[in-house]
Amino acid sequence: MDVEQGNKEIAISQKWPCLSQFFAKVKSAFLGFLKKIKKIAMDDPRRMIHAIKVGLTLTLVSTLYYVTPLFDGFGESSMWAVLTVVVVMEYTAGGTLCKGLNRAFATVIAGSLGVGAHHIAALCGQKGEAILLALFVFLLAASATFSRFIPEVKARYDYGVTIFILTFSLVAVSSYRVDELVQMAHQRVSTIAIGVATCLCTSLFVFPIWAGEDLHKMVASNLDKLASFLEGIGTECFGEKANFESLEGKPFLQVYKSVLNSKATEDSLCNFAKWEPCHGNFSFRHPWKQYQNVGGLIRQCAASMDALSSYLTSFSKTKPKFKADAELRLEIQTACREMSSESANALRELSLAIRSMTVPSLARCHVSAATSAAANLRTVLSNDITVWETVHVAMVASLLAELVNFTEEIACSVDELAELAQFKSTDSVHSAAVKPVLEEETPQQVAIDISS
Amino acid sequence: MDVEQGNKEIAISQKWPCLSQFFAKVKSAFLGFLKKIKKIAMDDPRRMIHAIKVGLTLTLVSTLYYVTPLFDGFGESSMWAVLTVVVVMEYTAGGTLCKGLNRAFATVIAGSLGVGAHHIAALCGQKGEAILLALFVFLLAASATFSRFIPEVKARYDYGVTIFILTFSLVAVSSYRVDELVQMAHQRVSTIAIGVATCLCTSLFVFPIWAGEDLHKMVASNLDKLASFLEGIGTECFGEKANFESLEGKPFLQVYKSVLNSKATEDSLCNFAKWEPCHGNFSFRHPWKQYQNVGGLIRQCAASMDALSSYLTSFSKTKPKFKADAELRLEIQTACREMSSESANALRELSLAIRSMTVPSLARCHVSAATSAAANLRTVLSNDITVWETVHVAMVASLLAELVNFTEEIACSVDELAELAQFKSTDSVHSAAVKPVLEEETPQQVAIDISS
Repeated sequence: MDVEQGNKEIAISQKWPCLSQFFAKVKSAFLGFLKKIKKIAMDDPRRMIHAIKVGLTLTLVSTLYYVTPLFDGFGESSMWAVLTVVVVMEYTAGGTLCKGLNRAFATVIAGSLGVGAHHIAALCGQKGEAILLALFVFLLAASATFSRFIPEVKARYDYGVTIFILTFSLVAVSSYRVDELVQMAHQRVSTIAIGVATCLCTSLFVFPIWAGEDLHKMVASNLDKLASFLEGIGTECFGEKANFESLEGKPFLQVYKSVLNSKATEDSLCNFAKWEPCHGNFSFRHPWKQYQNVGGLIRQCAASMDALSSYLTSFSKTKPKFKADAELRLEIQTACREMSSESANALRELSLAIRSMTVPSLARCHVSAATSAAANLRTVLSNDITVWETVHVAMVASLLAELVNFTEEIACSVDELAELAQFKSTDSVHSAAVKPVLEEETPQQVAIDISS
Repeated sequence: MDVEQGNKEIAISQKWPCLSQFFAKVKSAFLGFLKKIKKIAMDDPRRMIHAIKVGLTLTLVSTLYYVTPLFDGFGESSMWAVLTVVVVMEYTAGGTLCKGLNRAFATVIAGSLGVGAHHIAALCGQKGEAILLALFVFLLAASATFSRFIPEVKARYDYGVTIFILTFSLVAVSSYRVDELVQMAHQRVSTIAIGVATCLCTSLFVFPIWAGEDLHKMVASNLDKLASFLEGIGTECFGEKANFESLEGKPFLQVYKSVLNSKATEDSLCNFAKWEPCHGNFSFRHPWKQYQNVGGLIRQCAASMDALSSYLTSFSKTKPKFKADAELRLEIQTACREMSSESANALRELSLAIRSMTVPSLARCHVSAATSAAANLRTVLSNDITVWETVHVAMVASLLAELVNFTEEIACSVDELAELAQFKSTDSVHSAAVKPVLEEETPQQVAIDISS
């Protein structure tokens, strides 16, 4: 059978080679896509729950259309409930609360203002009304749009401002055509309220996904990542079988990288967490702001790790072989092992303390052990005043040399940009200027370097 | 007169002290608010232009209501034009294009699917139709919501998916009540098209704000910031009047900080820039992705600067006085001056090249001067093999000590969190365990440090 089928396939592929190739490609692309989808769902099963919740909420509010008595009550306004659900449902409970409450309040305020604008404009006759309404809409839309550039408004009420402009414009402008404005406004506000309420119910009571909990866990897991880096440094660089030569490609040198770009997620989670009611171990006034402070320090620490990591990698490429001054080297090595392992322990303790929401009592001991190791190292180094000073100046020089490397990389990258974007060549313009610079500058630098 | 008025004010403040205080507070808050608004407007006058443009576009599309022949043509559907303008108008032309095209295509596709769903469901009788429509809405909403977790979809089509769900639900659900579904769909699509077209016209033709141009300028100005830092290092640390003691609080040590968090803005600008048509010197297929590559390197460089800057600051606090080995010090100092000034020049050249869109021909010379200075330094240091090795090991140790400092800061910050969030105390649980750890661990460490 298999042979026969194989022959058939060969026959097909000989007849339509392009077609069979095409199907093979489609098949592999489809399988790859399925694999990707599966991975996304497996990485965090709450994503599937969220998708089901959105479908459910939408089906729920659409009963406003299917059930005749309900539809008779709300009429065409029922669509506002559907619209509200689609735009308000967010992944986290805090996100839905933020958007839902923004939408509800903005609708009520802007709706009232719109009705007010209608009454004022109605005093000016048919033509005057249109002009006055247009003016109101222009002024309000322009000033509300400008208010979105105020950082505080942008952070917490951006969506509310959009809805404010939307509702005011819709109410004010339709008031020109609709006779029973108050009834229309009433219907819309009720359906929007129904939409928001349904969203809040599914968000808060059906498998709720709390932004606060995610933020809490994220900070703890970021601490763990920093700890893993330090543990790696401790064993790979200063452990008993330490070996600087084979550092490149080690996973622990990459583990902190995701921490560096965690600010945006952290900020949005923190913003949403502030809207959430008390849940689990978190009260309504939980100090979410402090998580941002801790997160900021964590990112600074990760940036320092980045510097250390790139220094270690470039250093390990030089295949160092230590021979001289074995005693000093041993002292430094021991101190480094102490510093890295104790700091790692402290960070693990802190992470554990956050996870279990207990006071981090043991972390203090580890931190003081690490700082005392650092202080000892300073004493050891400063005993030999020449070494001490040289180390400091050379350290700055090494960090600067690192910057020189980056400058070179940036220059290459900009060159690539210039090529891709077809930047103009300056050869024709500067041809007279380039040579003298080369002649004057480079020898001068060489001269300085040699004389120094 | 002044005296009289002063007396009056005093009399008032004596009569109603609270009231006058209250008014003074309100006045100062209002003035502060005005000042803030003025600053936001002055920082980037395009913000005011954008606000006026939004007001204008909204007023323009609302003529669909005011002009009777137009209103007779579109009826209640006119509100979709207003709604579209409010949600589609973005600050940059690329943003508006992205949202507008997403909205237009999603509406057409989802609308057709909705009409199709209606025809299938209509085959099953009144009750069956409602059930089948609800099922369709549930399945489509759930799967579309899930698709937003795919990174590629999230990045470019997030808004389109929202509109897709919205339109499909609205069309499918209203089809249950509306008899002339095709006419309704036609009216809605036309008004949405009018809304999108109006937005695009004002965005692209009235003082357009290009995301691509902003991205281009942002990368160039970030390069300038890095250059300023290096220039500052060159003069303040290695110049003729160099003085390590007074580094704290110098502005050049802060200038690169804003670069560290530029990723989110850069990504969104790049995403919008890809939608923009050719404008100024930028073609439609301008290599925007390469700006992200350059930006990534710039941020890595800024992270290294952060490490250098925090090292310099903590070092300057120890009030160093250089005495020993003046010759070596001078050599290192000269090399450092070379490295920082040449790198700064290279970065300035690169920034200039990007701004003027010319090939950065001079940057190469500066980069090679900087790298040769770095190479020279390496030679100088490696001449004395003891110093060379000590420097390397001590350098790692110093960077680690930096991490220890950060760990301490993080520990303090988590302590604060524990206090604010009233974490449980573990004293009762661990009281037996804490003491032995203190007794066993700390002396051991001290023992190691002394013996080493």
